[in-house]
Amino acid sequence: MIPFGFEITARDGAARQGRVATAHGSFATPAFMPVGTAATVKAMSAADVAATGAKIVLANTYHLMLRPGAERVARLGGLHTFMNWPGPILTDSGGYQVMSLAKLRTLSDKGVTFQSHLDGATYELTPERAVEIQNLLDADVTMVLDECPAYGADKDAMTASLDLTLAWARRSKDAFVARGGYGLFGIVQGGVFDDLRRRSAEALIDIGFDGYAVGGLAVGEGQETMFQVLDVTLPYLPDAAPRYLMGVGTPPDILGAVTRGIDMFDCVLPTRSGRTGKGFTRGGEINIRNARHAEDPRPIDEACGCTACTGHSRAYLHHLFKAEEMLGAMLLTRHNLTYYQDLMRGIRAAVGAGGLAAFAADCRAGWSAGDIAPI
Amino acid sequence: MIPFGFEITARDGAARQGRVATAHGSFATPAFMPVGTAATVKAMSAADVAATGAKIVLANTYHLMLRPGAERVARLGGLHTFMNWPGPILTDSGGYQVMSLAKLRTLSDKGVTFQSHLDGATYELTPERAVEIQNLLDADVTMVLDECPAYGADKDAMTASLDLTLAWARRSKDAFVARGGYGLFGIVQGGVFDDLRRRSAEALIDIGFDGYAVGGLAVGEGQETMFQVLDVTLPYLPDAAPRYLMGVGTPPDILGAVTRGIDMFDCVLPTRSGRTGKGFTRGGEINIRNARHAEDPRPIDEACGCTACTGHSRAYLHHLFKAEEMLGAMLLTRHNLTYYQDLMRGIRAAVGAGGLAAFAADCRAGWSAGDIAPI
Repeated sequence: MIPFGFEITARDGAARQGRVATAHGSFATPAFMPVGTAATVKAMSAADVAATGAKIVLANTYHLMLRPGAERVARLGGLHTFMNWPGPILTDSGGYQVMSLAKLRTLSDKGVTFQSHLDGATYELTPERAVEIQNLLDADVTMVLDECPAYGADKDAMTASLDLTLAWARRSKDAFVARGGYGLFGIVQGGVFDDLRRRSAEALIDIGFDGYAVGGLAVGEGQETMFQVLDVTLPYLPDAAPRYLMGVGTPPDILGAVTRGIDMFDCVLPTRSGRTGKGFTRGGEINIRNARHAEDPRPIDEACGCTACTGHSRAYLHHLFKAEEMLGAMLLTRHNLTYYQDLMRGIRAAVGAGGLAAFAADCRAGWSAGDIAPI
Repeated sequence: MIPFGFEITARDGAARQGRVATAHGSFATPAFMPVGTAATVKAMSAADVAATGAKIVLANTYHLMLRPGAERVARLGGLHTFMNWPGPILTDSGGYQVMSLAKLRTLSDKGVTFQSHLDGATYELTPERAVEIQNLLDADVTMVLDECPAYGADKDAMTASLDLTLAWARRSKDAFVARGGYGLFGIVQGGVFDDLRRRSAEALIDIGFDGYAVGGLAVGEGQETMFQVLDVTLPYLPDAAPRYLMGVGTPPDILGAVTRGIDMFDCVLPTRSGRTGKGFTRGGEINIRNARHAEDPRPIDEACGCTACTGHSRAYLHHLFKAEEMLGAMLLTRHNLTYYQDLMRGIRAAVGAGGLAAFAADCRAGWSAGDIAPI
């Protein structure tokens, strides 16, 4: 049986360059996973996603359990076949979306009962069912079901939530069917409370997982607080396992988290922004709807090799967004995901060369310098 | 100066197999031109369009003159650069959309004044301006401005309209700047009145154009009437020039029109259908939203080589449409345009082999047989 593997291939301070091996291939870390919520990275074909350089995508258990249903995906051959994505796939557990999207939630020790935001039908999600669904989806990386308190919960509430989450983590581990190349990740919770984060990390290590995620961040706490939580949490996580910061984030967030020792990221930012006209560039963010781009023959980012940048002007993208043409979202999403993958490639190379600090300083200088001057 | 060229390479009855040479390359006929209204074939990148086998696309003068504006497209290098479509482009004259989309139209001998459906701004479109706009767009094929009466206009109204259209055709010819590889097409009008169609054709030939379109059809008259109009019109058109049936049509429409001697087509049907869930197959049309496809692991059309059919199941397409994911429209549009291009390739090969009637019978038998049985 091929183990779910992680090797560290270089270090630069706390930052690590590595490789995760799964049943559907391996990927280099630090890695950014595009979000394919409903078994599609929005506005992108699977080939488009691969062309950006992405090697692993994320899909959402909550959305897929409601539609088309995990058993149906399994009958159709699993997510890889369904999406035509042969590479690694990580699925979240559904816990976060149950809290943010579902209606009439009822939480108990057993799990959570909720009504679908689509049609009001009642579903139950337990740690065991969340693991089963992810098995049915054929996820290479399964996430444990966790309870996600709203940002700002007080310490008593956070402690109670953490107790529940740790009990669920144990049950998730018991439910997980070990298979070659498939891994199960625990999720560190505990809000902004240092001792809870430490307790969470230690308890998860005691259970034993193939990787460790840091959850409950990117929920409104701000970058400074997020970095503080990483600073107090990461020292308690095992060096030899991959570390995944869930739902993060902006390019500066990613640079700061990699510097602190994070290996994996996911975020809807590049895809969602791509649909609303926001583009990421080496000179910071631009809004392609802005009139300054209306007659600009230059690409979004002259250093980018994506098809949006090699084939089209800012003026064309501006026109597509003004005309509400789907191709605008398609091209800008390709660009943004390519930008993110280029950033990760740069980070990996910098860690390998021991030059992460200089690389990060260069990136930040570019973002601070701002967009190219109008013609 | 390279002439705008047309050669007939084979015949089968009245049907012709040929090749049109333009400043931006040549294309085989009978040809189907995907519609790229606002300088984008909806839901498709330029590379996606090329991958379907399309060699020429159509763009709309009306939409582009309003947004982003013809002068702006010209400053940005013309439509080929703007869209990143290096091949031939045909633009319509804007006349049809002025009648169907614009507000507060005022028609005079000089031209038509109207308000933009986008922002109410007032524009004037004259035969001279329509030609100028298409020149600014860098269209390989320019269409003359014509007046398009509503379907059902009586003979007096149609005669008056034809008089105006013929006067505009003369002025369009005078305004057209001859350039190597660029052509100007006249448009035969006259509704369902045989003598008016004949008069229109003869008057246009007298002016002299590089190709001849049949306009005023596919406006609700039905296939039988449309074919009758072709039967009485095409004998009056020069054999040596390409013949373009505007805005047509369904696969059966195309087969019938090719059999009568038409060389070029455009229609929004494959692209619009692709966005609403209708797929064209060798077994007729399917609605991918139908529940029968929800768990069908087979492709839309097993004989199709497009990326939607080689990479994905009907079940996945069904899911994407149910989930309102953009990728559904992207994949089904690719499929439909590929289906249309495959049909045209089959038609050209059949004409070349003298087997068009048998090919058409095979196509019709497949459509009549209907969709594959549910699993």
